[in-house]
Amino acid sequence: MDFRPDEMTRAFVDEAQNFIDKHVLPAEPVLAAQVEATPGDWTVRPVVRELQAAARERGLWNLFLPPGPHGLGGGLSNLRYAPVAELTGRSPRLAPAAMNCAAPDTGNMELLAHFGTPEQCETWLEPLLDARIRSAFCMTEPGTASSDASQIGTRVHREGGEYVVNGRKWFATGAMNPDCRLLIVMGKTDPSGARHRQQSMVIVPRDTPGVHIVRPLTVLGYDDRDHGGHAEIRFEDVRVPAANLLGAEGEGFAIAQARLGPGRIHHCMRALGMAERALDLFRDRANERVAFGGPLARQGVVRTWAAEARVEVEALRLLVLKTAWLMDTVGNREARREIQAIKIAVPRAVERILDRAVQLFGAAGLSGDHPLAEMLAASRAMRLADGPDEVHLAALGKAELRLPTPASEGVVQ
Amino acid sequence: MDFRPDEMTRAFVDEAQNFIDKHVLPAEPVLAAQVEATPGDWTVRPVVRELQAAARERGLWNLFLPPGPHGLGGGLSNLRYAPVAELTGRSPRLAPAAMNCAAPDTGNMELLAHFGTPEQCETWLEPLLDARIRSAFCMTEPGTASSDASQIGTRVHREGGEYVVNGRKWFATGAMNPDCRLLIVMGKTDPSGARHRQQSMVIVPRDTPGVHIVRPLTVLGYDDRDHGGHAEIRFEDVRVPAANLLGAEGEGFAIAQARLGPGRIHHCMRALGMAERALDLFRDRANERVAFGGPLARQGVVRTWAAEARVEVEALRLLVLKTAWLMDTVGNREARREIQAIKIAVPRAVERILDRAVQLFGAAGLSGDHPLAEMLAASRAMRLADGPDEVHLAALGKAELRLPTPASEGVVQ
Amino acid sequence: MDFRPDEMTRAFVDEAQNFIDKHVLPAEPVLAAQVEATPGDWTVRPVVRELQAAARERGLWNLFLPPGPHGLGGGLSNLRYAPVAELTGRSPRLAPAAMNCAAPDTGNMELLAHFGTPEQCETWLEPLLDARIRSAFCMTEPGTASSDASQIGTRVHREGGEYVVNGRKWFATGAMNPDCRLLIVMGKTDPSGARHRQQSMVIVPRDTPGVHIVRPLTVLGYDDRDHGGHAEIRFEDVRVPAANLLGAEGEGFAIAQARLGPGRIHHCMRALGMAERALDLFRDRANERVAFGGPLARQGVVRTWAAEARVEVEALRLLVLKTAWLMDTVGNREARREIQAIKIAVPRAVERILDRAVQLFGAAGLSGDHPLAEMLAASRAMRLADGPDEVHLAALGKAELRLPTPASEGVVQ
Amino acid sequence: MDFRPDEMTRAFVDEAQNFIDKHVLPAEPVLAAQVEATPGDWTVRPVVRELQAAARERGLWNLFLPPGPHGLGGGLSNLRYAPVAELTGRSPRLAPAAMNCAAPDTGNMELLAHFGTPEQCETWLEPLLDARIRSAFCMTEPGTASSDASQIGTRVHREGGEYVVNGRKWFATGAMNPDCRLLIVMGKTDPSGARHRQQSMVIVPRDTPGVHIVRPLTVLGYDDRDHGGHAEIRFEDVRVPAANLLGAEGEGFAIAQARLGPGRIHHCMRALGMAERALDLFRDRANERVAFGGPLARQGVVRTWAAEARVEVEALRLLVLKTAWLMDTVGNREARREIQAIKIAVPRAVERILDRAVQLFGAAGLSGDHPLAEMLAASRAMRLADGPDEVHLAALGKAELRLPTPASEGVVQ
Repeated sequence: MDFRPDEMTRAFVDEAQNFIDKHVLPAEPVLAAQVEATPGDWTVRPVVRELQAAARERGLWNLFLPPGPHGLGGGLSNLRYAPVAELTGRSPRLAPAAMNCAAPDTGNMELLAHFGTPEQCETWLEPLLDARIRSAFCMTEPGTASSDASQIGTRVHREGGEYVVNGRKWFATGAMNPDCRLLIVMGKTDPSGARHRQQSMVIVPRDTPGVHIVRPLTVLGYDDRDHGGHAEIRFEDVRVPAANLLGAEGEGFAIAQARLGPGRIHHCMRALGMAERALDLFRDRANERVAFGGPLARQGVVRTWAAEARVEVEALRLLVLKTAWLMDTVGNREARREIQAIKIAVPRAVERILDRAVQLFGAAGLSGDHPLAEMLAASRAMRLADGPDEVHLAALGKAELRLPTPASEGVVQ
Repeated sequence: MDFRPDEMTRAFVDEAQNFIDKHVLPAEPVLAAQVEATPGDWTVRPVVRELQAAARERGLWNLFLPPGPHGLGGGLSNLRYAPVAELTGRSPRLAPAAMNCAAPDTGNMELLAHFGTPEQCETWLEPLLDARIRSAFCMTEPGTASSDASQIGTRVHREGGEYVVNGRKWFATGAMNPDCRLLIVMGKTDPSGARHRQQSMVIVPRDTPGVHIVRPLTVLGYDDRDHGGHAEIRFEDVRVPAANLLGAEGEGFAIAQARLGPGRIHHCMRALGMAERALDLFRDRANERVAFGGPLARQGVVRTWAAEARVEVEALRLLVLKTAWLMDTVGNREARREIQAIKIAVPRAVERILDRAVQLFGAAGLSGDHPLAEMLAASRAMRLADGPDEVHLAALGKAELRLPTPASEGVVQ
Repeated sequence: MDFRPDEMTRAFVDEAQNFIDKHVLPAEPVLAAQVEATPGDWTVRPVVRELQAAARERGLWNLFLPPGPHGLGGGLSNLRYAPVAELTGRSPRLAPAAMNCAAPDTGNMELLAHFGTPEQCETWLEPLLDARIRSAFCMTEPGTASSDASQIGTRVHREGGEYVVNGRKWFATGAMNPDCRLLIVMGKTDPSGARHRQQSMVIVPRDTPGVHIVRPLTVLGYDDRDHGGHAEIRFEDVRVPAANLLGAEGEGFAIAQARLGPGRIHHCMRALGMAERALDLFRDRANERVAFGGPLARQGVVRTWAAEARVEVEALRLLVLKTAWLMDTVGNREARREIQAIKIAVPRAVERILDRAVQLFGAAGLSGDHPLAEMLAASRAMRLADGPDEVHLAALGKAELRLPTPASEGVVQ
Repeated sequence: MDFRPDEMTRAFVDEAQNFIDKHVLPAEPVLAAQVEATPGDWTVRPVVRELQAAARERGLWNLFLPPGPHGLGGGLSNLRYAPVAELTGRSPRLAPAAMNCAAPDTGNMELLAHFGTPEQCETWLEPLLDARIRSAFCMTEPGTASSDASQIGTRVHREGGEYVVNGRKWFATGAMNPDCRLLIVMGKTDPSGARHRQQSMVIVPRDTPGVHIVRPLTVLGYDDRDHGGHAEIRFEDVRVPAANLLGAEGEGFAIAQARLGPGRIHHCMRALGMAERALDLFRDRANERVAFGGPLARQGVVRTWAAEARVEVEALRLLVLKTAWLMDTVGNREARREIQAIKIAVPRAVERILDRAVQLFGAAGLSGDHPLAEMLAASRAMRLADGPDEVHLAALGKAELRLPTPASEGVVQ
């Protein structure tokens, strides 16, 4: 057992740290100003484009994607990517996008890399890897408990050489962005099939007739419009060529599983970076802000918060790293319990850390003047995204109690 | 000891319940639509005006204000008002405003009723009681720990027959609204005086030259523009007649204390109403939403949440009621420990209840489709508003440990 | 609504406070010495006898028992008894026993008063009210989840003029004491009857042939031998006259419900007294003990603990009082949700307060030198006694969610 | 970075696992019976002697002690020892003692190995390594906050060729055991010296005139008499040769630091083993015990508990292992923050896991019939042993806030 990161990891970490400190953090107020100045706009802002160019030059590009069957990708192993991804979490609105490592595109690129035909990869994956277009993932539906895949209401039926999609999806992150060109849609091709063989995934170009972007949704009070927002979408007799099927019919659930494993660990990595950023802000504020005769850092409660945060971050980072190592060595499926564990533990810890940082900052902490409020909202949302904690707790609890757990409980739920 | 509310209380509760069920709750989507349709608008929306007329007809008007020295007011005792205020919390954006019982106007009206001259009352209190104008309270400042009144940076100095105000304030709720005509501003008239005698309060008409509304602030993404928002304000050589002083010079701190006691209990009452609303939504959702083979209400974790919420609400409501009774019988000052206690306990409990309700609702819970996300943000903000929990905990802890506690720790901090 | 206790309550509280301060607290080291000196002894110690005489003189005797059908009792209403019971919790090993208000005798006396025949009352209730004998309640069984009454394994069958009891019980508090003369035993008379009509209760004199006191049990290391310990008992063909049936056949479950309501509120009242005692000790220690340059009371964490304890105690006391008021005014059955609420909330809050007091005291807090460790163990046990929290949470949660709740979920479970 | 334990570790783990499963766990009831049968006896019981012989044969002996300057020891690195120590925590009363790896002897042997003269090692260390004698560590004192070393009241002054010791110590674990031959005593040799140079350590044979074993102390209700108990000791003009000084005068504090680092990590390792044992018991109980129509494992709350326990154990184990790796690679001093982190985090997590296991077991969980109650008491005590959590939190918080931290805050406090 050895806790020292290898040389390659250290090199990427140094490069990323340097890039983020020198380029990304200073760009935060620029982004804020650009977003402020363009209220109805859902596109990627110019400052992000500039950072993308700079990141690409430094080799900080598509690092999330391990080399795949089509020769695309060329990124890092999960274990090596983890600390880099954590660093991007320090500036969550900018750094992941700058390095083309932002959800939901990352997950969609993974799907294409693993399950896409060469044609699909050429058409969609390459421009995504090149950040020329963006994508969205359409799984969650209004009106049903989406963590229970058997309840999916969207229908995808074959008619001749086409699939016809009908249904409603929401919280399709990024889909308000006009540069979002493709939607990966999960629907039922065989509603009477076995519970986890009913679903399939199809690629739906966003400009296909019948795709109605109904409205943007907010998360707490945020519309996240610099990131393409969160859309409700109605699919009304949307027809795509049969070649747009991703994988085979009935594999939708299995594909979703494959997608969610890495997606979850990426979220957790970035969340730890958010916590570290919050701790930096916390530290500075505690030392600078004076109340009742001394700096806040002099107060026992403030010190306790700092200590508890540090302990949690250190322990959870190790669990994330071990999970990454397992994914690399025994595969996502064997690592599913660890993935569930971090999916449960990291967001709640990070949310608590952010909550306390906000508390230290007072009203300013809830405002847009610091990144804390936005990160707090994001960490709160993470307790629901990709399945609510309670679903993961139940599945992990069953495993711990050695109860029979259906294969499906591994990752998706 | 008797836990039954008296007849008068029951009558007002029935009337308020009826009004809220029949008029206020159905108006919520109307407000949402009106707000949606008018993005840059910070005024009171038409639906609120209509509800105000209806509430006034029913005698549900200004109930927060006990009869005062000027013959104005005519509201209820704290004990009788408490359950009515709780009911208004069920629809926090509409009901308090509809019944002219919304912060910060309530606190400002109280100040005027208690400390205002007959002229001040005529000029400002009467139109406020009549809802013809709105008001804001300018205490918190950017750049200092505002719970420590000795740090206030705004200066109010006398020049001849005028006071000249210079400084910056923020989180002045309601001040973005053009109908907000007066600002009650706390500043230092005697920076070298005794720690809690340095401050004074002056009434500053919002249209006085030198009053610069700098920008609106957000709270967890919300701009609260239907409620006049939260403004940052710069006061630059703002001159008001000496007659605009509220109370005497050096009494600013004492007046703030007087204001914050009732303000805090009102917040707590409404917060309990928010919790009850959340529990109604929780109950319906748990019974209707099906996942993994049955309604969510069948799950043990969901039942536990419901039970724990019920226990907390019941216990804390009693503590709020007892505090109200103490304020009525022995006075706000003697009730200061209980006021601190509810200020600490209620928001954190209500926030937890809302958080769990959001969790039950999934992504929808964080969206604007249900009132939960907004109430969650509001309850989070309550842990900072009128002094962060930690300041109150420290003061209450000192009292519990029988340490000498300065008079000032009673209410403001 | 009125939060002031009436004159009668105040008089009893004054008397009890005086008695406890002057007589009971000084007797604590005496009891400790007497217990220490008599390792194998399970009887009531001499100092308790002396205190009983003193309490009786002052009219502080059997206050728990409201006047009953047989003219026995003569105690206080629940609302009036509550603050007196709380005071006895300040010295939980001595005060309740001194005032003949200690479990399990109180519950057993209530059962006899409500369900006993005149003969049963004469034989058993009178000497219990006179503290000449002690009693135990035999409900919990090893090997089954005793909160599920349908699982009770003990059999009570009629043979001619007798009932024959066979089975095993444990955690029969007080039953190691040779002065414990009667056991009230719950068993099944009709195992094939309706779920909550299978059980009956019989009075079994402890010296009946076939009653085997198997062994004493410990609770977190404590044998509670000054209180008669906790016994495992085997009943082997134990024969009692049919006249020893308490109530009618099949009423065992209903009788248990009747017993547990008051028992639970008494536990909660005393637990609050334990918390107040702990806070007194906490306060003194925090002011006296110096570390790292100042008294512990100077530390923010210590103040926070004191404040949070005070808030919880104040809120929960009101909930207990309201529950008592409901029991007096609408009856135990209608008050069952409130009884469940305090049963859940009080022990966990009191345990946390005790835990923090122990933490302040350091190693001494876990030793026998202060009452904290013992009270901590007692409060921990309360989360299991009379049904684990989780059973109550589930029942209360079902009620809150408006799910059908069987009558049986009111009190026993 | 590599999370796979090396071959040597795996071999020792296999051996230890096998020994514990086959020999130690079956011996638990034997120990219980031997302890039960000998109430006044504080010595090591026969079954422990037998297990010691068996462990020694298997090479499971003194593994805690890395090879030292005197050629003694021969144990494992911290990283390799960690999983073995964890396994011993599964049977905390037997396994550590069986493998001669039990506190406080381990810490005392470390001190002798690192700071002892050849003579001291020959006289004391060799028989300790051979388990022929036992030892105790006398640091904590009644009447002062012992985590503040400057408050130590025991005096050790030089008179000619002797040191004279006067003072009182308590919670000297193991010192009730007549086989305990030496006491390592911390006292002040220079009360007017620099704050952390006032203290020295001397070896005091337990049978020296003037050593008065005052009484045994309990921890919650346990006297731990199979482990030599916890003694209060009075030192009254106790004279030992000057050669009994450990290290140099004024080095007492530094030596204590050196002792506490490994001591704390050992405690944490064993605590994780306790948690794993509890989870095994939890799992079996949840699957076997039926209530309200099904096994407890069917209940959502039970599953949640199992899942949360698993997550915490996995994360904290990694933090312990990383700390061990740091101690091996950069030294105890550089690893002090991580040592503090695990000292804070592990006991509170393990206590919660044990508490929930107890809750699942019901009353039985608090009794002596299962190891849970005893382990719960032990984990509770760990939050105080070697310094209360709050002292560590404050020190770690200061470090996190980059405040100046005295060297002394590294380990002892």
